[in-house]
Amino acid sequence: MSKQNRRAFITTTTLVGAGLAAKALPSFKEKKKGMIHHVFFWLKNPGSKEDLDKLLAGLQTLKKIKSVRKIYIGVPASTEKRDVVDNSYHASELMFFDDLAGQKVYQDDPIHKKFIADCSHLWDKVVVYDVQDL
Amino acid sequence: MSKQNRRAFITTTTLVGAGLAAKALPSFKEKKKGMIHHVFFWLKNPGSKEDLDKLLAGLQTLKKIKSVRKIYIGVPASTEKRDVVDNSYHASELMFFDDLAGQKVYQDDPIHKKFIADCSHLWDKVVVYDVQDL
Repeated sequence: MSKQNRRAFITTTTLVGAGLAAKALPSFKEKKKGMIHHVFFWLKNPGSKEDLDKLLAGLQTLKKIKSVRKIYIGVPASTEKRDVVDNSYHASELMFFDDLAGQKVYQDDPIHKKFIADCSHLWDKVVVYDVQDL
Repeated sequence: MSKQNRRAFITTTTLVGAGLAAKALPSFKEKKKGMIHHVFFWLKNPGSKEDLDKLLAGLQTLKKIKSVRKIYIGVPASTEKRDVVDNSYHASELMFFDDLAGQKVYQDDPIHKKFIADCSHLWDKVVVYDVQDL
């Protein structure tokens, strides 16, 4: 192999290698499609930090459920007030499942049932949105 | 080092190494904290597949906005009907930002403004939930 050819070969190999690596590593915006389960809670005693903390602690137990792929527990963010923004809720539970079956497993899991038994007296209203990721 | 000590040393090193590795690699349920922006759309013409497709295509353009860390575009999932589940919406846009500033950058981005200009005639109602991940 001439020096020139050898250089060309190395460059090509490096580029092909880089291309493969780029393909193998998903970009930060890519993700597996699945099912999203977003629940908003309105407390019976909106002013009670103790009740909010109890609810948030209860929500933390749900991450132990095996079919829950990801869980995000939160409170209203202090974004700009706009007519379309509903910031009246007190706690948010956002979950990702592989599929509908994963969500059903979660609903029936004893940890989920214990959470409802322990915490449902804390909330006045719950709204659930189930989303199929496209 | 005796054979026995050497084995003990290797075992300890391996365990320490494994411990460090477990700490360094986040579990699949762990994630960076940030801000969640979840928008639900109700179409003016709920029966129009064309309008839904236009809206979904418009939502796809939003992933080009730099401060959008992740975006999930979806439709109601066919989960069990329950009183608490609101499946009356037609499209869902779920986004993750690093922080409140990232969300503001998104609101002001020309791509977002073009989406509103191009698609707002399609929807009748929008509800936004902004969540601070804890």
